[in-house]
Amino acid sequence: MSKGDATRQAVIDQAVEIAGRLGVAGLTIGTLASASGMSKSGLYAHFRSKEALQLAVLGSARENFVAQVIRPALAAPRGEERVRTLFERWLVTSSSGAAGCLFVSAATEFDDQPGPVRDLLVRDHWDLVDSLAQMYRSGAKDGTFRDDLAPEQFAHDLHGLMLAHFHAHRLLRDPAAEAHTRYAFERLLQSLLS
Amino acid sequence: MSKGDATRQAVIDQAVEIAGRLGVAGLTIGTLASASGMSKSGLYAHFRSKEALQLAVLGSARENFVAQVIRPALAAPRGEERVRTLFERWLVTSSSGAAGCLFVSAATEFDDQPGPVRDLLVRDHWDLVDSLAQMYRSGAKDGTFRDDLAPEQFAHDLHGLMLAHFHAHRLLRDPAAEAHTRYAFERLLQSLLS
Repeated sequence: MSKGDATRQAVIDQAVEIAGRLGVAGLTIGTLASASGMSKSGLYAHFRSKEALQLAVLGSARENFVAQVIRPALAAPRGEERVRTLFERWLVTSSSGAAGCLFVSAATEFDDQPGPVRDLLVRDHWDLVDSLAQMYRSGAKDGTFRDDLAPEQFAHDLHGLMLAHFHAHRLLRDPAAEAHTRYAFERLLQSLLS
Repeated sequence: MSKGDATRQAVIDQAVEIAGRLGVAGLTIGTLASASGMSKSGLYAHFRSKEALQLAVLGSARENFVAQVIRPALAAPRGEERVRTLFERWLVTSSSGAAGCLFVSAATEFDDQPGPVRDLLVRDHWDLVDSLAQMYRSGAKDGTFRDDLAPEQFAHDLHGLMLAHFHAHRLLRDPAAEAHTRYAFERLLQSLLS
């Protein structure tokens, strides 16, 4: 990593932290300048616009999510074990308030604000659906999962489980958040097994 | 309704509309003044603070949700029919982007911002959980639903279904949002029947 890249990454890490508190929509060159002590003009040189900054933060959050959740699942044997690994890793990420969770708040911040941030969120979510559906499909090919179910339904359902967990954990601080989510996951998994 | 009440309600309706676009966190006396053409001082006379305005908007959203979703469900026969009515009404509300959906965005806006708005969101959600759990309980007493399941699990699961619907409908504009949600609801309902 060059010195320029390292600086850029350090700034993005701070931007991710701010977005975690204020939302991606609350992240601007101005809020980042105040928080980081860097000059606005220096930040403009790195990012050129608020939107480019927001896109960089979402790109970083996506990388983290892939590294912490998707890749470990793909490293596990296909079928039930892969889906269980996916779920366990996602639960850890959701519980820790890691950067991947920026997507939950950004979804409602940008859902009716057309533009490149919304476009990226939509594209990233369809990529996630593709990854999840593919995990289902490979398990169905092996005979672990039923082959008469739509793989996209699995993606939709698992995402809903994680949204409910995030809400119960973050807003409600519900001590039963994890137990409820595990119960729902087991019911979902049982309904998929062939 | 007195003239003062009618004015207040008209202002709140406008505030709800703004909160729908900018989030509850984006709703301030200033944004409301610009949108409504009323003076800031006039609005301060009505609401006294930004937080009081945000609380009034959430109160109004809650009333709408109760009128459009909870009360029609309670008017239906207990058990399966009540839960189906609840689901159908919630789906209509979620699809229409009605005020009740402010709770979805407000949850992530305020989840790490301690204060009266967050407190209200948490209290309102537990009230919702109580209502849903009670619908489950009355169906279990009648023998429609299994009596070995936690009523709060039903509340958690149905909420997750609706969060996933909201995300798929609002962010993704996914044409399959409703079909996926109905499939998940039928699976949930079948798992509850005794």
